Amino acid sequence: MAENRRGQHSFVLPQMPVITHWASVAGKKEAEGPLGKTFDLTCMDAYFGQKTWEQAEKQMQKLALEKLIEKAGLSHSQIGLVFSGDLLNQCIGSSFTLRNTGMAHIGLYGACSTMAESLLMGAMAVSGGFSDRVIAMTSSHFASSERQYRFPLGYGGQRTPTAQWTVTGSGAALLCSAGIGPRIDSCTVGTVTDLGVKDASNMGCAMAPAAYETIRTHLEDLHRTPEDFDLIVTGDLGQLGKEMLMELARLDGVYLGGRLTDCGTLVFDNTTQDVHAGGSGCGCSTITLCGELLGKLKTGKLQRILFCGTGALLSPTSTQQGLPIPGICHAVSIIAGGD
Amino acid sequence: MAENRRGQHSFVLPQMPVITHWASVAGKKEAEGPLGKTFDLTCMDAYFGQKTWEQAEKQMQKLALEKLIEKAGLSHSQIGLVFSGDLLNQCIGSSFTLRNTGMAHIGLYGACSTMAESLLMGAMAVSGGFSDRVIAMTSSHFASSERQYRFPLGYGGQRTPTAQWTVTGSGAALLCSAGIGPRIDSCTVGTVTDLGVKDASNMGCAMAPAAYETIRTHLEDLHRTPEDFDLIVTGDLGQLGKEMLMELARLDGVYLGGRLTDCGTLVFDNTTQDVHAGGSGCGCSTITLCGELLGKLKTGKLQRILFCGTGALLSPTSTQQGLPIPGICHAVSIIAGGD
Repeated sequence: MAENRRGQHSFVLPQMPVITHWASVAGKKEAEGPLGKTFDLTCMDAYFGQKTWEQAEKQMQKLALEKLIEKAGLSHSQIGLVFSGDLLNQCIGSSFTLRNTGMAHIGLYGACSTMAESLLMGAMAVSGGFSDRVIAMTSSHFASSERQYRFPLGYGGQRTPTAQWTVTGSGAALLCSAGIGPRIDSCTVGTVTDLGVKDASNMGCAMAPAAYETIRTHLEDLHRTPEDFDLIVTGDLGQLGKEMLMELARLDGVYLGGRLTDCGTLVFDNTTQDVHAGGSGCGCSTITLCGELLGKLKTGKLQRILFCGTGALLSPTSTQQGLPIPGICHAVSIIAGGD
Repeated sequence: MAENRRGQHSFVLPQMPVITHWASVAGKKEAEGPLGKTFDLTCMDAYFGQKTWEQAEKQMQKLALEKLIEKAGLSHSQIGLVFSGDLLNQCIGSSFTLRNTGMAHIGLYGACSTMAESLLMGAMAVSGGFSDRVIAMTSSHFASSERQYRFPLGYGGQRTPTAQWTVTGSGAALLCSAGIGPRIDSCTVGTVTDLGVKDASNMGCAMAPAAYETIRTHLEDLHRTPEDFDLIVTGDLGQLGKEMLMELARLDGVYLGGRLTDCGTLVFDNTTQDVHAGGSGCGCSTITLCGELLGKLKTGKLQRILFCGTGALLSPTSTQQGLPIPGICHAVSIIAGGD
């Protein structure tokens, strides 16, 4: 199978997995944003009917998972594997969602890159013949993230202009060995890249070097150019991180300009929603993919995208110990199909 | 490839990945235990020369990784993918180990089941033809775990008799598409199983139902019996969890008795080392595998084992919110080979 490995970190999929169905769940602020109409479910209650924000996040994943299974007309027992993770310590959003469902679970941690990571691993499992139906899923919640990574919300801390707003949302996608829908043709696994950024309020710039490293690797390994894609979509670099990524590419002689966009700049309207540098979190790229992007790939409005999940691999402990913020980015190339 | 899927959660590997090399690093207490002579590196300093326990854990993983690569005679650039994770919030042990090494990284979270999870995913990647050389790796550290999950060590909290002792250690294994060594012939992915145990000082009993569920599934899916294995080795159920697992099996008409052992009961000598119900942590199963078990599979003293990584998917937050402790268990069947 040497043709599967053009480069060490990239692989093309001999049997392209089909993303037959997807579902998304979002919170109030996201519902009021530019993508509001693309979500399957939205909820005006930040608690999603639960007692705590962590349980609200679990509830969102549960709603996304059940909505996906309903749309696909399947039962739990017909799902092979579920690849999922989230930002909560010990990934309790995913674990408690899957508790006693009987579905086999591979837990991932890739910070905000988790949707791309789970698609990539799911694609490997389906294309390798290990499963016929796999779910890729993740979530994030503004309030559970703020109190875990930053300050208690009640403290009312001032946010810096470089800060981003964690998206409250969850998305899930079903990858199948057969069926109709957009298909994953190739992937690139990221490397942990760190240029020394230590400002935990400027995650976009901390992640931009990892994003460029993965995009460069993908293009080189698979002999592609930015023009091979309608869009190169990063997960949550936000406005500043996106500018830094363009600059890193420009210094390297690569023009990403017209093709590059970032889910963190798509999900909110910064002129009216005051999210500073843009959206962030696992949910940011997930709800943008499982609605807007896959929708346009299904109808052929987009022919091919490079979906690049970006993650900042810090913890409050590493930051308190004075360490920089390593970034990672996984890339998944998705081609149109469906209508 | 229908023969790859006898059951939904289990798969046999058409191309059996070979575990050509492995390496382990352990702390003082582990070095003084029954497996002391099987580790590649041991260190009497709990800080491993670093300033903090979290950095000590990173250092252990780094030592295990470098030792493995040295034993295999490879360079970083010859490694395809690294599957790793740990117990630290946001898995900073793994992320900081791989920072700027240029190695592609898939971050996993499976609590103490991580070594089995990473072997399973690595086996999928190699057998599916996506990579020729993959590393599976994890770690845990007594002091970083205690302060993250329980109490500050200086507080000197009394431990209950059901409590287990987190192993300070790291292990890494190299899976290759060709070569000589023990081989992975099949795997079973676990489900998140929860019978309602809420006592965070009795993790063995919280995880035992998940362990039994996965062992039962493996035997059923692949039409095997316990007698097909020299050993069925769970990761860190400890003495109490092991007894509960035997009882759960017995109630189901399955006799595991003579075949069953648990890394948590092997790694320390409870008559002299006072670890209460036994060892635990990602490092527990990892250093037992990457020394004692793989060593005996290499020389043929063991012909086939079912390595069952067990994980408790709780967080301090879920416990404080009154939730039970979901467990998971991933199983990897390894057959002898090497000498």
